[in-house]
Amino acid sequence: MSNGKLILLRHGQSEWNKSNQFTGWVDVDLTEKGEQEAKRGGELLKEQGILPDVVYTSLQRRAIRTANLALNAADRHWIPVIRDWRLNERHYGALQGLNKAETRDKYGEEQFMEWRRSYDTPPPALEDGSEYSQAGDPRYAHLDKVPQTECLKDVVERFVPYFEEEIMPRAKKGETVMLAAHGNSLRALVKHLDNISDADIAGLNIPTGIPLVFEIASDGSVVNPGGTYLDPEAAAAGAAAVAAQGAKK
Amino acid sequence: MSNGKLILLRHGQSEWNKSNQFTGWVDVDLTEKGEQEAKRGGELLKEQGILPDVVYTSLQRRAIRTANLALNAADRHWIPVIRDWRLNERHYGALQGLNKAETRDKYGEEQFMEWRRSYDTPPPALEDGSEYSQAGDPRYAHLDKVPQTECLKDVVERFVPYFEEEIMPRAKKGETVMLAAHGNSLRALVKHLDNISDADIAGLNIPTGIPLVFEIASDGSVVNPGGTYLDPEAAAAGAAAVAAQGAKK
Repeated sequence: MSNGKLILLRHGQSEWNKSNQFTGWVDVDLTEKGEQEAKRGGELLKEQGILPDVVYTSLQRRAIRTANLALNAADRHWIPVIRDWRLNERHYGALQGLNKAETRDKYGEEQFMEWRRSYDTPPPALEDGSEYSQAGDPRYAHLDKVPQTECLKDVVERFVPYFEEEIMPRAKKGETVMLAAHGNSLRALVKHLDNISDADIAGLNIPTGIPLVFEIASDGSVVNPGGTYLDPEAAAAGAAAVAAQGAKK
Repeated sequence: MSNGKLILLRHGQSEWNKSNQFTGWVDVDLTEKGEQEAKRGGELLKEQGILPDVVYTSLQRRAIRTANLALNAADRHWIPVIRDWRLNERHYGALQGLNKAETRDKYGEEQFMEWRRSYDTPPPALEDGSEYSQAGDPRYAHLDKVPQTECLKDVVERFVPYFEEEIMPRAKKGETVMLAAHGNSLRALVKHLDNISDADIAGLNIPTGIPLVFEIASDGSVVNPGGTYLDPEAAAAGAAAVAAQGAKK
């Protein structure tokens, strides 16, 4: 049996990536550039013959549309689809909707980086009455409580058990599984796959739209630690751009 | 408990609808007009507050993309998705790829209409070696045998049992189920829901991109026989256009 594969695909540029706002669970759409990134991601899969058997997405438009566009470009539009909130982006609390550069200017570099990259300190909670709250959103009606803020640790704690129960067994059986998700839900997953420490995960940035492939042996071990980007040069440039966020308004 | 609903949505204009070719299982894409029709279908759902809880699609790109575009426009992109080959268009046999008007000129009106609208006479079989065959397509690898031709009766026999087992129980429970599918798989379903005779089904034409809603009581009976188009005027014009196919080259 050949090894299984996990294809991690961070959604292409969103409207709020472009305007440099904290997004979290706000359901913004892709920009035209983001749509192109998603298609290019699918073309890379097709060119390199890494063809997903099944796709998991978050419940958020930017990841769902990225999956749709990438799979259509890869001629794999017909595979089974599973959507789950546990792949969602980190909830960004009261920062949702704020401009990143303005937030840095207002609160200072130290507080800004702590909110962005601290493993276990969440931003202030978003009130349920806020225009950026998901408290009344029907897609989350099945949850006991819609999050009001999350740190990366919270994302690990909701996503990794789901991943181990639902997704990893497929990879162990040799399936190729695509996950169309978000910067922080994919960071949570890579932390788990590569056993990265709580401190070191702050330095990991995942670029948009470039498939990152982990090969998984039948015992669940990662064959290629760190994973393999299908376009390594573009991935390096993209990761640097993510790290520089907050520098622009 | 409120009644369940079935939303039947025929895919928007495809490349081969536009060029007037028999399509069947050939996996052609939507045209730009078809994309607009799909979005409009989703807007109608949103405007009228008929919001699907789950969507079923065929394994064919034009229906899958129609579902994606319509659901995105209706803000229901996040609902569960199930894809199954039994929602596929009728396999058009050796006619796949041929121009409809040329076929009518070559074989005559009577033969042409028999292939298009006979309930139980399939067109000649498509050879597996044809460029328009799906014999080697991975999405159908799980079938014992990929069809080489089908009449409408064949579609009824593959689709209706699946519908009764998988989809109707959801409607009986009060769910709103969208089916994004094809002219002939939806004709097969309407024949079943409205108990239309083998002869009379020849006269039924379903327009593209306009949601047709059947209300289903908890015992599975249809509350509104014939269903309700969400844009009745556009539906009447669209059905007339389908009936006139073959007149243009």
